Amino acid sequence: MTREPAGDTGADDGDSVVYDLDADCTAEDVSENQPYLAEINGIVDYGVFVDLSESVSGLVHESVLEGTFAVGDELIVELESVRDNGDMAFEPADVGDYTLESVSHDYSLTGTNRLDANVGEQIHVEGEVVQVKQTGGPTIFHVADEYGVVPCAAFEEAGVRAYPQVAVGDVVRVTGTPEHREDSVQIEVDGLSTLEAEDADEARERIDDAIDERAKPHDVEPLIDWPAFEKLRPNLEEVATLLRRTVLEGRPIRVRHHADGDGMCAAVPVQIALERFIAEVHADEQAPRHLIKRLPAKAPFYEMEDATRDLNFALEDREKHGQQLPLLLMLDNGSTAEDVPAYETLTHYDIPIVAVDHHHPDPDAVGDLLDAHVNPYLHDEDYRITTGMCCVELARMIYPDITDELRHVPAVAGLSDRSKADAMEDYLELAREEGYDKQRLQDVSEALDYAAFWLRYNSGDQLIQDLLQIDNGDEQRHRELVSFFADRAREEVDDQLDAAMAHLEHEDLDNGAHLYRIDVENYAHRFTYPAPGKTTGEIHDRKIEETGDPVITVGYGPDFAVLRSDGVRLDIPNMVSELEAEIPGGGVSGGGHLVVGSIKFVKGKREEVIDALVEKMEDAELDDALSSAAPIDD
Amino acid sequence: MTREPAGDTGADDGDSVVYDLDADCTAEDVSENQPYLAEINGIVDYGVFVDLSESVSGLVHESVLEGTFAVGDELIVELESVRDNGDMAFEPADVGDYTLESVSHDYSLTGTNRLDANVGEQIHVEGEVVQVKQTGGPTIFHVADEYGVVPCAAFEEAGVRAYPQVAVGDVVRVTGTPEHREDSVQIEVDGLSTLEAEDADEARERIDDAIDERAKPHDVEPLIDWPAFEKLRPNLEEVATLLRRTVLEGRPIRVRHHADGDGMCAAVPVQIALERFIAEVHADEQAPRHLIKRLPAKAPFYEMEDATRDLNFALEDREKHGQQLPLLLMLDNGSTAEDVPAYETLTHYDIPIVAVDHHHPDPDAVGDLLDAHVNPYLHDEDYRITTGMCCVELARMIYPDITDELRHVPAVAGLSDRSKADAMEDYLELAREEGYDKQRLQDVSEALDYAAFWLRYNSGDQLIQDLLQIDNGDEQRHRELVSFFADRAREEVDDQLDAAMAHLEHEDLDNGAHLYRIDVENYAHRFTYPAPGKTTGEIHDRKIEETGDPVITVGYGPDFAVLRSDGVRLDIPNMVSELEAEIPGGGVSGGGHLVVGSIKFVKGKREEVIDALVEKMEDAELDDALSSAAPIDD
Amino acid sequence: MTREPAGDTGADDGDSVVYDLDADCTAEDVSENQPYLAEINGIVDYGVFVDLSESVSGLVHESVLEGTFAVGDELIVELESVRDNGDMAFEPADVGDYTLESVSHDYSLTGTNRLDANVGEQIHVEGEVVQVKQTGGPTIFHVADEYGVVPCAAFEEAGVRAYPQVAVGDVVRVTGTPEHREDSVQIEVDGLSTLEAEDADEARERIDDAIDERAKPHDVEPLIDWPAFEKLRPNLEEVATLLRRTVLEGRPIRVRHHADGDGMCAAVPVQIALERFIAEVHADEQAPRHLIKRLPAKAPFYEMEDATRDLNFALEDREKHGQQLPLLLMLDNGSTAEDVPAYETLTHYDIPIVAVDHHHPDPDAVGDLLDAHVNPYLHDEDYRITTGMCCVELARMIYPDITDELRHVPAVAGLSDRSKADAMEDYLELAREEGYDKQRLQDVSEALDYAAFWLRYNSGDQLIQDLLQIDNGDEQRHRELVSFFADRAREEVDDQLDAAMAHLEHEDLDNGAHLYRIDVENYAHRFTYPAPGKTTGEIHDRKIEETGDPVITVGYGPDFAVLRSDGVRLDIPNMVSELEAEIPGGGVSGGGHLVVGSIKFVKGKREEVIDALVEKMEDAELDDALSSAAPIDD
Repeated sequence: MTREPAGDTGADDGDSVVYDLDADCTAEDVSENQPYLAEINGIVDYGVFVDLSESVSGLVHESVLEGTFAVGDELIVELESVRDNGDMAFEPADVGDYTLESVSHDYSLTGTNRLDANVGEQIHVEGEVVQVKQTGGPTIFHVADEYGVVPCAAFEEAGVRAYPQVAVGDVVRVTGTPEHREDSVQIEVDGLSTLEAEDADEARERIDDAIDERAKPHDVEPLIDWPAFEKLRPNLEEVATLLRRTVLEGRPIRVRHHADGDGMCAAVPVQIALERFIAEVHADEQAPRHLIKRLPAKAPFYEMEDATRDLNFALEDREKHGQQLPLLLMLDNGSTAEDVPAYETLTHYDIPIVAVDHHHPDPDAVGDLLDAHVNPYLHDEDYRITTGMCCVELARMIYPDITDELRHVPAVAGLSDRSKADAMEDYLELAREEGYDKQRLQDVSEALDYAAFWLRYNSGDQLIQDLLQIDNGDEQRHRELVSFFADRAREEVDDQLDAAMAHLEHEDLDNGAHLYRIDVENYAHRFTYPAPGKTTGEIHDRKIEETGDPVITVGYGPDFAVLRSDGVRLDIPNMVSELEAEIPGGGVSGGGHLVVGSIKFVKGKREEVIDALVEKMEDAELDDALSSAAPIDD
Repeated sequence: MTREPAGDTGADDGDSVVYDLDADCTAEDVSENQPYLAEINGIVDYGVFVDLSESVSGLVHESVLEGTFAVGDELIVELESVRDNGDMAFEPADVGDYTLESVSHDYSLTGTNRLDANVGEQIHVEGEVVQVKQTGGPTIFHVADEYGVVPCAAFEEAGVRAYPQVAVGDVVRVTGTPEHREDSVQIEVDGLSTLEAEDADEARERIDDAIDERAKPHDVEPLIDWPAFEKLRPNLEEVATLLRRTVLEGRPIRVRHHADGDGMCAAVPVQIALERFIAEVHADEQAPRHLIKRLPAKAPFYEMEDATRDLNFALEDREKHGQQLPLLLMLDNGSTAEDVPAYETLTHYDIPIVAVDHHHPDPDAVGDLLDAHVNPYLHDEDYRITTGMCCVELARMIYPDITDELRHVPAVAGLSDRSKADAMEDYLELAREEGYDKQRLQDVSEALDYAAFWLRYNSGDQLIQDLLQIDNGDEQRHRELVSFFADRAREEVDDQLDAAMAHLEHEDLDNGAHLYRIDVENYAHRFTYPAPGKTTGEIHDRKIEETGDPVITVGYGPDFAVLRSDGVRLDIPNMVSELEAEIPGGGVSGGGHLVVGSIKFVKGKREEVIDALVEKMEDAELDDALSSAAPIDD
Repeated sequence: MTREPAGDTGADDGDSVVYDLDADCTAEDVSENQPYLAEINGIVDYGVFVDLSESVSGLVHESVLEGTFAVGDELIVELESVRDNGDMAFEPADVGDYTLESVSHDYSLTGTNRLDANVGEQIHVEGEVVQVKQTGGPTIFHVADEYGVVPCAAFEEAGVRAYPQVAVGDVVRVTGTPEHREDSVQIEVDGLSTLEAEDADEARERIDDAIDERAKPHDVEPLIDWPAFEKLRPNLEEVATLLRRTVLEGRPIRVRHHADGDGMCAAVPVQIALERFIAEVHADEQAPRHLIKRLPAKAPFYEMEDATRDLNFALEDREKHGQQLPLLLMLDNGSTAEDVPAYETLTHYDIPIVAVDHHHPDPDAVGDLLDAHVNPYLHDEDYRITTGMCCVELARMIYPDITDELRHVPAVAGLSDRSKADAMEDYLELAREEGYDKQRLQDVSEALDYAAFWLRYNSGDQLIQDLLQIDNGDEQRHRELVSFFADRAREEVDDQLDAAMAHLEHEDLDNGAHLYRIDVENYAHRFTYPAPGKTTGEIHDRKIEETGDPVITVGYGPDFAVLRSDGVRLDIPNMVSELEAEIPGGGVSGGGHLVVGSIKFVKGKREEVIDALVEKMEDAELDDALSSAAPIDD
């Protein structure tokens, strides 16, 4: 781009260069004492009007004109004067022979990080359009440059799409005026054009490089010293990078998480960290409302029904609000083969998927479908590194300022999933320093679980934040609410067990373990808290405490059974495979960890399946180290 | 109306007529050299100001005045001059004796089809108000004239209802300026008045005549040559007329359809055809979003719950958005006595109902409740003319340009409902020409069925269009998605049958047919794909293929049974009636076709009902021609 | 506050007082012939510009000036003239020595009841901010003063929060211009400031006193003469006061009511009365849409799931629309211990709770949680005073003009809950005078019950109003719809009983009563109308009529039983307690009145529980006066 004449170029000694302004040049591109090519567009008594560009025109007074003119004639002129109101007057320039040199408009770009300093002044921004939203008033183009995303309001007419040819993904140059909004700046668009060819490539490369840089996660100090955890850190950093990049690119994020204590401890910190980063990137407190959504999932895997629903919403949001399709973030969920059909549904659309989970993964099944995958089992660690623990670090990598609000969260996560990690002591100590003793942490965990049950498919953002005491100031309410919910949860567990314990069938297995069976359909209240999985878990825990011996507990309903065991070397995935083969027409499926899991079967084969299962358990060796404490999905 | 003076009337030879402008006359109604009656409304040093109408006034200069004047005095004037800014000057006219002739404002109406050519100029439109929507900004009156519907934005104050006396159904005259919107034109209202008495009647008649004409469906060439189908064509044209008229009158349409392959093949083409016609009539791409809604129905009939919900939404939309109550369009559903209670609920409101169905109809029951009814059985044809086949033709009658996107759809519909129509060959050939071989069509059918299951009560517009490849360009995605869904569907059917087949009870009936019974509650997975009806159907199909003999299959749950038969002369409706009488307290109800159907009963009488049913089957004659292939509602 | 100079003060004899205008003073505060302290803010050829306050400034012409001046100099001036365009000219005032007296702006407050008379003129309003809603255009502050609530629109920039420091609960002074809206007036804000310290206290006290006064319910004449009812009146007045105050304070109201006939008869009149009062207080027909919501509850108590959902919505509305948290109004529901957990959840937030119920209350359990509680049992009356009867009076206290629309409603309520009150005769007579004979009333009752069933969780406002014929003019539709629904309801009851009656088990108890048992899971259709409770009730009613003897009826499902009895002295709450103790592992819970109730237990102990229950019934004494007619929650 030739930018000379707009500055002080020294090319003013009457040489033979005449400047030809590009159509988009403005008055700012016109220098004094420079000859410009003009075209006559009107003739009046007192002179002729000339155009130098689309927006630069002015009068040449008849007193300085000689000869006759027709509209359309060319004329070489120099600037004579500029009036207060901006009207320009020109005079003919005498240049003899000349060569034309075209002049591009001088677009000095202003980064979206410097809008504040330029409020009220016309500036230029170059970036990629990441969303085009038609409002009842202006059309809002969200434009991402190297520094952030800014909404650019172009008003054509109320409710009318401005610049209909500009689409998401285009690289554009916006000319406009930044204006203050409450907590944000918006550009009022004066002009907007799509960059073409090299200009676009160059701008896109510049922006991409910058986003690469900015997407890098913060290098946060681990909350505690835990070598095992450090093995996961590079993977978490990869996820943090991906999520930050997603935000920088203006793509929405949909979080699906396991609806229990650990799942909440995982999802809420990441949600809030992302919300704050989104608000920052967009310089808009309202942006997170449209760009991130957290949804609890009832099943321990990503169901087809949820996937079709998510896809539906995503396609509708694209249609209605001009949004990009979202990234799907699976938390405390999403590592297993059961997730595959739902994932495959989404892969036909531009929907990246990321999972952070600590359930026993099936990397062969999900590996190719995930854009990133964090799971302790991928590093020879296990469920004891809970998803909540991972996600607290992840949240800090995304938005480190959140750290002080999260110090108690890993301990809650650990207690929720009964993590036997050695690091639990350190996490508990960390929480204690924040005023959370173990009982209070336990209460938070129970309260989360209880609230999750009644919230069903609602995220209950405010309520959960009150329970978890993140992003929230009213400690009094937090404490009272936690106590109340935790107490209710315990009472309802007691009620449930009052009914159930009387019907527990006990058997001494040959291997010396106790086997307890309970028909949760017949001997527990249905459709209320605690659900069958948790009911079974609570019975199991009581029996371990009561006996001090190895214990296996089976809670069964009409077509499912939940298994818990401690001190017994089971291999549930293997048992399920065997049952599948041994019981034709049993419709057996299921899975879990070695010593904890759940099985589905057809109702009519329940007795046979469970009897066969127990038989297999008879043969299992005892092993003190094995515990089903967590993370069973109630 | 007297319109002379506004044109060139020749009545300018100083005769004794003085024109008296109506209050709504404008400067355009004032001709030169004509005497007008004026009233003095102000006196200043340099003359008097006179009013000729509400908006026509001007100065009579003191230099041309004689005598004294008071405000309120009448004066006969002629136009002297009109300044560039529109200011008018008058001079006294000398007319001697005169008679007054009143002058109406010259409203040359502009049809809504010519708005584009009149953008930016004030025009007049007459039409019926079909919707009054209050926005946060202006009030939008949707006005339908002979040519289309146009939104007219009247701004009183942000969010304030303009012209509160004007209601839906009124015939109005709108004075305003058409302005471009992205894909549409809107009139900015300068004035809006309700026509009264004869003026209204005349306008309404003119509009109605035009709508009658425009509502006529397009005369489309049949996709294939099929005499049986042609019997239904007049009925389909009647429905097309009714639907087009509904659109022209600005009334919303609510489509309820059977949530299976044929239902989708019926509903989606009609939906898209109507959407395009709506967009055209309203000259607004956004209009369809508010005026048509497609909803899958889970039951094989119109449930009371759906009807109350639909009514609720309709009443709320009327309240909130000023919309008319909708027309209900039942597709692949709606022909039977079971629909009656729901229909009767709606008939108490202004909600027309139309059904296109190929399930065995009960015209005596539904006839009076339907404004139009298409069903092959009404013409001695049967289910083999599927609803999808009918609706492809219907969609083409409504909006013929859709034809090229639909050529493969009748074949999908036919395969979905296993139509044994001879015409299937032609439909398959038609599809083949579009690149759809039979396997691909079968895959689309399976994929639709599978998606419908997981979408539950969502219409999933975009996803279904991707599967059906209508209104959509990404063929690659369509192919991949179809393959994936079809494969998943087949896998899940296999899983289900793996469990179920082992529990199939076989019996050789005296009449030589095989009877298979399966307890789908006990020996199939619940709450997953395939549902009991489809599970039974798949078992039945396998057994037919396996045995080559006549087969009856009964899939039963706690309080229902699904029946399929091939090669046996059953009369299920009759059997149900007999069972109802023979088993007191059985709560037996149900129905279907001769050889396919479903029965409900109370749980405690299941054994008795099914045994009695089987006994009746023993006595049935064999008949090769009879097949339950379709359209059973899984 | 010193307000002198703004009026005629007589202090104009050249004494040594110079007035110093406060920054917020306007031109109206400037009097002629008064000396004011001014500051020079600009110097031009023809004089100096001076500021007297932020908005008061003007020219002092050089012709009247002596000496030299610098910007920032003080000058004592008097008003010389005010031009038509508002420009002021001042001249120096000669005052010698002087003392400064500060002048506050003369805020004569205009009550929100006098806005209509001041449309288009700038006025001042003081009040409490009760809602701050950000729209796509202006920020709307809803301000409550002694007379009502008015929306004040402050426009900063489209979608930008104006006055971000002003929050709900602040007492503010608004300067602005009332403008007409369709049915309302809105103030366009010129300035808005928060009152501090004493100013705020004073204003708040003034407003509170006025609201106290206005919250007082209307003193309505009882519809019928009924001494028993009068015992409840003071309590109802307390509730009316609380609800009116809630409206005056701009707080939303959420109504949860029992989804049956009596519940509808209670909730709908109160809803409409409140809607009208809200519209009046806010002078806005649209206000009720945002400030009151009626929701049917399926359970006979307030479920945890509903409470978490309500809390969620409330917190979201606060977040999104700046609303206060709502008051919860429980109708025909809410008096029992079963409501406690849900109530306790809400008490951690600022959500007052009020219950009007006629089910047997547990005041010890709910007393502390309720801000007001009306229940006939608290006054030694019983269910015969139905909630609908109470709420018709309540609605009249809130908004007496509704009276004429409600005269038939208490009779419907009474019939719905089969009230045996002596007063029923008077209510029936009252209804008869309005054209409702007993059959029509009975039909309305059945129709409401039937509609409630199919509406499920929807309020179905318009449909229910059509059935109940309140706030609605189309009597023809009302009559047809009622007949149709009532007939449908009866048919479906007949169908249900056709199946069920055959399976009724009869037993003659030792005490001479008939015992009927019905397994409603096995011998009635599931998931359809009528539900198990109503099915049991209908059977019971038929048996009473048939036998004329004391009857007990038990309808049981897998884990519940519904009990009805007439003429037998049962004590169901006591029986439940005994069963709880006697059957370990039975999971027995439940309750109800003496002779009517329901019991829950675990599925596997059904037989044992029901047998034990029947045994207890054997021992019960007969007592003609005892009836379970109502209000059993079907």
